[in-house]
Amino acid sequence: MPTTTLTSRTPAPTDDGEGALNDLAALVRDDLEACNRTIVARMESPVTLIPSLAAHIVAAGGKRLRPLLTLASARLCGYGAGDPAAARHIQLAACVEFIHTATLLHDDVVDESALRRGLASANAVFGNKASVLVGDFLFARAFQLMVEDGSLEVLAILSQAAATIAEGEVLQLITQNDLATDEARYLDVIRGKTAALFAAACQVGAVVAGREKPVEMALARYGLDLGIAFQLIDDALDYAADQAQLGKTIGDDFREGKTTLPVLLAYQAGNPEERSFWERTIAQNEQTPEDLPRAIALIERHGAIAATLGRAASLVASAQAALSVFPPSPLRAAMHAVADYTLHRAR
Amino acid sequence: MPTTTLTSRTPAPTDDGEGALNDLAALVRDDLEACNRTIVARMESPVTLIPSLAAHIVAAGGKRLRPLLTLASARLCGYGAGDPAAARHIQLAACVEFIHTATLLHDDVVDESALRRGLASANAVFGNKASVLVGDFLFARAFQLMVEDGSLEVLAILSQAAATIAEGEVLQLITQNDLATDEARYLDVIRGKTAALFAAACQVGAVVAGREKPVEMALARYGLDLGIAFQLIDDALDYAADQAQLGKTIGDDFREGKTTLPVLLAYQAGNPEERSFWERTIAQNEQTPEDLPRAIALIERHGAIAATLGRAASLVASAQAALSVFPPSPLRAAMHAVADYTLHRAR
Repeated sequence: MPTTTLTSRTPAPTDDGEGALNDLAALVRDDLEACNRTIVARMESPVTLIPSLAAHIVAAGGKRLRPLLTLASARLCGYGAGDPAAARHIQLAACVEFIHTATLLHDDVVDESALRRGLASANAVFGNKASVLVGDFLFARAFQLMVEDGSLEVLAILSQAAATIAEGEVLQLITQNDLATDEARYLDVIRGKTAALFAAACQVGAVVAGREKPVEMALARYGLDLGIAFQLIDDALDYAADQAQLGKTIGDDFREGKTTLPVLLAYQAGNPEERSFWERTIAQNEQTPEDLPRAIALIERHGAIAATLGRAASLVASAQAALSVFPPSPLRAAMHAVADYTLHRAR
Repeated sequence: MPTTTLTSRTPAPTDDGEGALNDLAALVRDDLEACNRTIVARMESPVTLIPSLAAHIVAAGGKRLRPLLTLASARLCGYGAGDPAAARHIQLAACVEFIHTATLLHDDVVDESALRRGLASANAVFGNKASVLVGDFLFARAFQLMVEDGSLEVLAILSQAAATIAEGEVLQLITQNDLATDEARYLDVIRGKTAALFAAACQVGAVVAGREKPVEMALARYGLDLGIAFQLIDDALDYAADQAQLGKTIGDDFREGKTTLPVLLAYQAGNPEERSFWERTIAQNEQTPEDLPRAIALIERHGAIAATLGRAASLVASAQAALSVFPPSPLRAAMHAVADYTLHRAR
């Protein structure tokens, strides 16, 4: 199997790049623990299959990246300074995680995924039907949490994000198997399916803190660019990462015929013979076991992983620049480092 | 094929019982037309598959019963009297229809239905994946419409209803094939999956009109009882109705092993041989083509349709009694008659 740009860069096998994430979590540890308690408490329902299934995905881990962004953004904006009872950011961070979880449940149904974070996916364990309906419940519960918070501004940001996520997911479905998809359209997909919630998660932090519009917009920009970079890297990893390390099956996107940037760049740069390989494997979705190594080799040959990483790196720089509206602080430094973490995931 | 209590009662084949519905619609005709325009305008998206799929189900008809309840309730409460620009009820009626449509899309995926209102269902035409994701979009869009309206009270009512609907749907999934389901649990299912939105649709009408709590609660009661009755009749019709007239396949619930009241009552009253019939067909879901006529005959023998209709009739009376907080008016009379319509559907 060919060595990819990604795996060949691995500097130290023990460094999974999550140090920055842990550092940020440590700075808001109490908030994050309170958020986890809220998540567990609010996925309750007399219909016990709901908390069982939700626990499978919500409580089973994940990095809590999105709620962490809400908590950190709120604190960076000075929310609750000197007020130990301030808890709006905690409730809204839980709400962000519920929206994310609802999306994951529906994604796994749509993608027919059997694995999620290295474990059996909820649809594999509980069936597609339960995953669809519990996703709906978590989505509704997220809105109940927002309504309890009582800010129409927050509700507007998160309901807009929810609509944008769904648009991104539908667009992804349309562009699947379509090699005529261009980079702009691909960016629309990932801006919707991933970055919109990152942006909203951060922006909401500024809103609860009552900060001025430019600060709110700076955090939305940070989240948006971070989210796009995060997804670019995710799409690159699908053609490169060590399966055990990533907790997902390499080549999932390939098997589903997703037109992610690595494929699009390799296709556009390919010779006629290579193009017909992509047309068979992606457009017609006719694949044999030897096709994935070939796809990885072609992506490598045309520098498509490096190009994808390059785009991610410049978005990370843009996300970090947006933080300059804030004075230096350990929290700002940790959010800066988390942006780098998305790139480190690639090593 | 045995004649059922339902079909044998048919008084005049041309009377589909929808006269009352048309009368109510006529009283709020301008509102309903404005609502239809809002529905079409607000299901727009740059991702054109969304309006295409949504149009298939939203614009292709349906009785608009739920938005009609919102419009009529608001007007019954005096909303917008003397103010031709008053339009909050129109926006919220559209929102109610979006929630309903999102639920239908996900329902059809969960039930693997091929027909909806006598036409091919959206999942049959566009696939399950698109139906799940467009359902999510419509749900998010519904919340955007509520946020634009700006009432936290309305948001609380409808987000609670959305969570209750999902709970009812999950409970239905759990009780499927389970003959130990009792009537209370069955009522929890239909209260959730159907009546919660009817109740919220009506209650919201009182809220936009700024009416006092007892009026709001009376309309919620009207909607709740009407909704339970509506679903009871729907469940009875599945073992009785003329397929062409109903626009759905008779025996759908049977084939899916749903433990609706007609089945539960017949099972509970059955002798050992009959019980083993239900255990094979519903609990084990092992069916042959001769089983549906047999099921209908058993349901008939034990008076299970009549008993189901009896429960519906007393709920209709309760719904109608709730309207007594309002002075007599053509609108009150029409809402009274619409409650009767749910029963007339059974003839």
